[in-house]
Amino acid sequence: MYDVAIIGTGPAAVSAALNLKLHNKSIVWFGPSELSRKVEKSEKIANYPGVPMVTGPELNNMFHNQIDEMGIEIQDKMVTAITKTGKGYMVLGGNDIYDAKTVLLTIGAASAKGYPGEEELLGSGVSYCATCDGYLYKGKTIAVFCGDKRFEHEVEYLSELAEKVILFTPYKDCEIDLPNVVRGEKPMKEICGADRVERIRLTDNSEIPVDGVFILRNSVAPATLLRGLESDGAHIKVDRDMNTNKAGCFAAGDCTGRPYQIAKAVGEGNIAAHSIVEYLGELEKKQQEAKA
Amino acid sequence: MYDVAIIGTGPAAVSAALNLKLHNKSIVWFGPSELSRKVEKSEKIANYPGVPMVTGPELNNMFHNQIDEMGIEIQDKMVTAITKTGKGYMVLGGNDIYDAKTVLLTIGAASAKGYPGEEELLGSGVSYCATCDGYLYKGKTIAVFCGDKRFEHEVEYLSELAEKVILFTPYKDCEIDLPNVVRGEKPMKEICGADRVERIRLTDNSEIPVDGVFILRNSVAPATLLRGLESDGAHIKVDRDMNTNKAGCFAAGDCTGRPYQIAKAVGEGNIAAHSIVEYLGELEKKQQEAKA
Repeated sequence: MYDVAIIGTGPAAVSAALNLKLHNKSIVWFGPSELSRKVEKSEKIANYPGVPMVTGPELNNMFHNQIDEMGIEIQDKMVTAITKTGKGYMVLGGNDIYDAKTVLLTIGAASAKGYPGEEELLGSGVSYCATCDGYLYKGKTIAVFCGDKRFEHEVEYLSELAEKVILFTPYKDCEIDLPNVVRGEKPMKEICGADRVERIRLTDNSEIPVDGVFILRNSVAPATLLRGLESDGAHIKVDRDMNTNKAGCFAAGDCTGRPYQIAKAVGEGNIAAHSIVEYLGELEKKQQEAKA
Repeated sequence: MYDVAIIGTGPAAVSAALNLKLHNKSIVWFGPSELSRKVEKSEKIANYPGVPMVTGPELNNMFHNQIDEMGIEIQDKMVTAITKTGKGYMVLGGNDIYDAKTVLLTIGAASAKGYPGEEELLGSGVSYCATCDGYLYKGKTIAVFCGDKRFEHEVEYLSELAEKVILFTPYKDCEIDLPNVVRGEKPMKEICGADRVERIRLTDNSEIPVDGVFILRNSVAPATLLRGLESDGAHIKVDRDMNTNKAGCFAAGDCTGRPYQIAKAVGEGNIAAHSIVEYLGELEKKQQEAKA
């Protein structure tokens, strides 16, 4: 059982990981190993103290060197579900289950909100995992939201099973060219159905009947990821110590609210790490008292 | 009238200043121009993301270069009083008065608590300013707390006026050698008196009768600095946007609470700057509406 599972690899996560490692905590860390794409795409960063006028790729590279030097590893896996257990949290990363005493969510702002209908129909036609659920859609019509080029192989896998795939990507240079994969003419805006997925609605309000919807994102909407997690608008609700409403679950960075800034994320990651260390200390004390 | 007065020159202030400058806000910034002594004294900093294994002096130097490059200046003055006015805040920096629409307190943790009796007897025998009040103690006995070597010239100035000076310093290599300046045998722990200063109490509970007490610190206890400022234990109470209980007054860094960490300070400085920009925008809108 790990001390901490960190979900996401942006600046908040980097900051937390450095501190947790210095405190000798065991960490399992999930997310793109190339770190934050948002940072990567920043042309010039002028307001990060200590590193004057840096490009996003340069700063990400600095982050990378720092975690490498400290011997911290990243599992390049997407986390699609977190469940509270008696002893902590069970984290589904890729197709594997990991146990951790605490969880730190640093999942960014972009993914903070899912599609309308997404949470309600999850497991009833909505899936986050091609490998897990693809076989259910043999010979059927599915919609696939591919949030990142790195998931394109999953789209290809789904196209081998499904009869027809309607594909949505937020980026332009999609390289998938398969006879049964067609592009959505407008972006998807809603997933519809009474008890299970029946159709999707696009931004022009046109509707397309589908049997299922696969959503391949770097991360999942917080309330979908962990049931009962309290939100504040589009953000995860936290207090000044980065506690969420779930004991042992912390959050930091863009997912907790504005300003969406590297310095803010780094600061919150640091605070969260310290809160986690304190929480683990109290947990241990309680366990020793229970034994005595 | 300045947009913002920043009190203190630690990492929170550096982070805020960079952001406020990028937003074209006019800044008056008070504190030691050599920046944070706490950072300066750090041997190795291993957990500041983006800057692996750096010494305190190196990091301070990076901060310095960055603010120099952006053309941001520091007034090497101690702020001893802040007063809320109809239009914003009046800040006493050294012997000069500065007007600002908003105030950002980044005054560190060490100075968050004054001596018992300090706030109550301020202006009744307790003074923060040798130049302002020294002449009141001609031929009298005074206690002086000199919190930093840089204030020693003020102690010398006071020794020219007072008959006897009982000196307290938190550091050891004090260079003052004057016939009428004696060292306190134990640290001062309390300032006593009914309506005005009558005596001081030391940590061994011995008491010394004095006519006045001068306290020369890099910064002043928050509630003394700005009357009515709400605290939370030894810290300034803030919300997640770094608002204090006083509209237009913000706080960031160690003075708002633990963990006392550079990353946390930098994050809070960033958040405070964004809150200030927003506050100034709303202020301007209100003023335009009032004119129309």
